[in-house]
Amino acid sequence: MSDALVLDAAAQDLLFREARTANTFTDEPVSDEQIQAIYDLVKFGPTAFNQQPLRIVLVRSAEARERLVGHMADGNKAKTATAPLVAVVAADHEFHEELPAQFPAFPQAKDLFFTERPVREASSSFNAALQVGYFVVGIRAAGLAAGPMTGFDAAGINKDFFPDGDHSVLAVINIGKPGEDAWYPRNPRLTFDEAVTTV
Amino acid sequence: MSDALVLDAAAQDLLFREARTANTFTDEPVSDEQIQAIYDLVKFGPTAFNQQPLRIVLVRSAEARERLVGHMADGNKAKTATAPLVAVVAADHEFHEELPAQFPAFPQAKDLFFTERPVREASSSFNAALQVGYFVVGIRAAGLAAGPMTGFDAAGINKDFFPDGDHSVLAVINIGKPGEDAWYPRNPRLTFDEAVTTV
Repeated sequence: MSDALVLDAAAQDLLFREARTANTFTDEPVSDEQIQAIYDLVKFGPTAFNQQPLRIVLVRSAEARERLVGHMADGNKAKTATAPLVAVVAADHEFHEELPAQFPAFPQAKDLFFTERPVREASSSFNAALQVGYFVVGIRAAGLAAGPMTGFDAAGINKDFFPDGDHSVLAVINIGKPGEDAWYPRNPRLTFDEAVTTV
Repeated sequence: MSDALVLDAAAQDLLFREARTANTFTDEPVSDEQIQAIYDLVKFGPTAFNQQPLRIVLVRSAEARERLVGHMADGNKAKTATAPLVAVVAADHEFHEELPAQFPAFPQAKDLFFTERPVREASSSFNAALQVGYFVVGIRAAGLAAGPMTGFDAAGINKDFFPDGDHSVLAVINIGKPGEDAWYPRNPRLTFDEAVTTV
């Protein structure tokens, strides 16, 4: 534990050091109030031009859960079927429509930078992924475990859950209290010198 | 403030509610020890197959700083030139070489899923962006302000800072203590109902 951090040690543990990706969950439900509290915290995380392209679909009905499970890779089906709550997180490629309201200091951004769809797709995919990072931290801030997954038929989920053609799924996240044998042994991490260089 | 969160209120403020994207900084240096403490916290954030594709280049020499400033959009040059520390964050598309060591439970992942470069580029770009989200949170956990920017000549930075051709810059992040008039007024945020739907 380093003195170089201001964040208290309990918060460090809750968010990073002891937090783990859960593969099993208890039956305890995850409430709308919990998700709203998480959102109302992590919505402040920065994005380029305050574009906030992350969209979250909470899969609460049995019918929608069954459809989602059908798109998951075999190894992810059982946990997606049984987690207390499953969220589909996606990038909204039409985020620019919100820019004049969301970035009032520079309302021209919509027309100066984001008229072309490929530019919007690249920007929203990166910025929504940043927001997925904040969201995972937020789930942990609520004392819950996240189980983010990217093993699925993305085209199938996009067609089924985002028929407007303007969104791309980034991840499916199981959310709940960790259950029995919820995690595998902690994997290693790259050392500072492996991940960080100085020029 | 919601009771639905376990994270204490001071930590919520430090990481999200009161944290802001800084546009000016004091002269106080950012030490290697601080960056190492940040890395040693946020390295635990989850990535698919524990792939950890984020690479961080700390730009400490005047010569490298000058090269970097040359690639930045005009509106970002001054702050990139003057921030106490600037980090270039990138996705390593050859992360799969580390997988057998980093994901020992399933060393076949390298050859089963990641033999094709376009697959690796998509996976590393998303997962490194997640890690940029964790890194921004970590910078704030150290009591520092982050100023992430995406306005730059990406091809120029890639060629200049990653001549191996195996990395793609995702963002350039100014890091330091906020200076005078460090931020603009807080922008609005999408409401819960605008960003979150239930099916």
